[in-house]
This record gives sequence, structure tokens and C-alpha cells, in this order.
Amino acid sequence: MTATLDRLESTIAARRGADPDSSYVARLNAKGMAKIAQKLGEEAVETVIAAMRGDAAELTGEAADLLFHLMVLLGASGVPIADVMAELDRREGVSGIAEKAARPRD
Amino acid sequence: MTATLDRLESTIAARRGADPDSSYVARLNAKGMAKIAQKLGEEAVETVIAAMRGDAAELTGEAADLLFHLMVLLGASGVPIADVMAELDRREGVSGIAEKAARPRD
Amino acid sequence: MTATLDRLESTIAARRGADPDSSYVARLNAKGMAKIAQKLGEEAVETVIAAMRGDAAELTGEAADLLFHLMVLLGASGVPIADVMAELDRREGVSGIAEKAARPRD
Amino acid sequence: MTATLDRLESTIAARRGADPDSSYVARLNAKGMAKIAQKLGEEAVETVIAAMRGDAAELTGEAADLLFHLMVLLGASGVPIADVMAELDRREGVSGIAEKAARPRD
Repeated sequence: MTATLDRLESTIAARRGADPDSSYVARLNAKGMAKIAQKLGEEAVETVIAAMRGDAAELTGEAADLLFHLMVLLGASGVPIADVMAELDRREGVSGIAEKAARPRD
Repeated sequence: MTATLDRLESTIAARRGADPDSSYVARLNAKGMAKIAQKLGEEAVETVIAAMRGDAAELTGEAADLLFHLMVLLGASGVPIADVMAELDRREGVSGIAEKAARPRD
Repeated sequence: MTATLDRLESTIAARRGADPDSSYVARLNAKGMAKIAQKLGEEAVETVIAAMRGDAAELTGEAADLLFHLMVLLGASGVPIADVMAELDRREGVSGIAEKAARPRD
Repeated sequence: MTATLDRLESTIAARRGADPDSSYVARLNAKGMAKIAQKLGEEAVETVIAAMRGDAAELTGEAADLLFHLMVLLGASGVPIADVMAELDRREGVSGIAEKAARPRD
């Protein structure tokens, strides 16, 4: 999995400034953060629906779409995926309920 | 990153059947798929908003929340994260725009 | 506003069984509930983003899109908009915080 | 329906500046636009899930929640609900597919 996300992060970084006519990543970035965030939201909705339908194959594809667009969003925001993984590691060992209680929620 | 997601997948699998009073993952699973999917959707909305605010620290935390709940959703659906990574790998090499064009979108 | 939503509900009901080639509502309904729900989710994401951008004109358009797709979803689910309004009326008089506390939230 | 949304708009406007300890609307507004937008997104996710479950009673309640938070969002953004209804009226008569084609979608 390291290979996959590391490579994806590099690929996205390389494509970001490419010709929007030849690269989906470049096209999204050219449209700006609102469009990238919109795509992430849309893929999350599709993931929710695939899960509710109980269709594992569809869910696999939608989760891949969601991860892909999360990587594009992080790249455009200057957040390395390693920072997100470090945050997940940091929370490790803290039991779920304790963790949720520890973070301000609303 | 392998370590992080592999370990997270194992931790979630181990907690799934635990006492809901002591484990957030167990509590979510006890509530069923609709609640897990709802949480994923909520974390995606928070990720969208953090990105729009341009707050990198907040985005890092929200992206971790989103990944965590995606892992819970995949676990509850019987989809290994390795399958999602394999799907991302499979798409590799296909240019973004061609890839999007190749998949049925609506 | 009565006129608008009443007319919209009637229009949507009339178009639901029309030729998908000539009616967007018919096309959505032919694709089924998952697609209608997906569109509602997407329009909500766009509404969130327009609000975060502080663009009142864009927000007006996105809110109209969201309401339109909510009406399509309710129609496809057999829920009259009058029932939703009656639910809002029922909650009236209950203070917001008391109301939220009274409803099971998760 | 006019009565419901008109009254709701007035109620929300009146509560906006109230004591956050006694009013949910005041509390939401005190937290700012990001929190209001987040709540709208969450209610949309719950509406999507209720629709996918095919639970009409649950959907009625979630649609009411969604409409309520849309009204709070519009109020906080300075957009009268009448403007949204006017936009829906303006689109009336335009067939759905033509309408969608006329708006830039991406």
C-alpha cells in the first residue's frame, strides 16, 4: 500500500501543472479548490450509496475514487499524505471512544 | 503508510466484535451500516469545509477522520483495503482524463 | 412559495413517467433511487461550497438545485412535501435546543 | 407551505441573535458559517441514507431537518428563501434536460 499511495502522490504532484487538456488532475487543479472539494464530496456520496446497496465491487471502485480525490485535495492543499498517516498513528493506542471524547466535536 | 493502514485494518477487525461500551468501532458496527455510512459522509463534509477554509492542520485531522471511517466502512462491508489499492494500481498508467472517460459516470 | 413548491411537486409527478429522452425528471427516475439520492447529495455539497465561498448568487442557484432534487427524491419515495412541512410545523414552538435534545441523534 | 417557510424564516431571523444557551439557531450562528454548512451537509447525508433505506417516516423527518438547516444557512448568508423560490419559478417551463444543458455543469 505504501507503493500505491506514495506513487499516487508523486503522480498527482507531477500532473498538477500539466496541460489541462491531457490530464484530469491538471484540469481539476486549474478549476481550483472549490471544484476539487466538490469532487471529493461527490465521491463520498457515491461511497455511502454503494455501501448502502451492499455492492462490494461497486464499493471498491467508489472507495478508490474517494481516495484518489482525497490525494488530489491534499496535494492541492500542500498536505503530505504522510502527515495524515502520522495523525492516524498518533491516535493509535487511544481507544476509539476515548479518542472521540478527547477531540472537540461541535 | 503500509504499516499505518495495515495496522488500522487489523485493529478495526479486532475491535468490531468488542464491547460497544469500550470501543468506538464496536459501537459503530453495532449500530449498523447506515450509521457507519453516515459517519463517512459527515467526515467527508468536514474535509470539504477544512479544505475550503485553507486550514492545513484542520484538513490533516479531518482527512485522518475520513480515512479512519472509510476503513471502518470497508471492514463492515468485507472489502479489504488491499482491494482498493489494487484498483488504484490498476488505473495507474491510464491518463486521468482517459480513465474518467472510460468509466461510466451517470 | 406555496405556488412554487406545489407546482413543482405536480410538475415532477407529471414528468416522472415521461420519455427519459425528453425529461430530466423522467431520466433520473428511470435510473432509480440510488441515482436520485446521489444527485441530492451532490447538490448539498455544492450548496456547502457556495456558502463557504460567500457567493450569494451562486448559493441561490445551488439552493434551488438542492430543493429541486429534494422534491424529486420525495416524489420518488412517495412522500408529499406537505408531510415535510407538517413535520416542520409540528416542531414549531419547541425551542431549537430542546427540540434537538428531544430527538434521538445517534 | 407558504406559512411554514415564511414563519420559519422569521423565527430563524428572530433567534439568530438570541442567547446561544437557549436557542439552537443562535448557537449555530455563533459558531459561524463553517458549522452551519457542516450541519446542512450532515442532514443531506442522512436524507440520502433514509431514502436508500426506503423508510418514508425517517425520510420525512430527515427532509424536515435538511430544510430547517437550509433555512438557517440561507438566513446566515443573507439570501431570502423568496429568492430561491423565484429561481425555481424562473426555471419553470424550461424542460429539465434543456435546463441542465443550459447551466454550466463541468
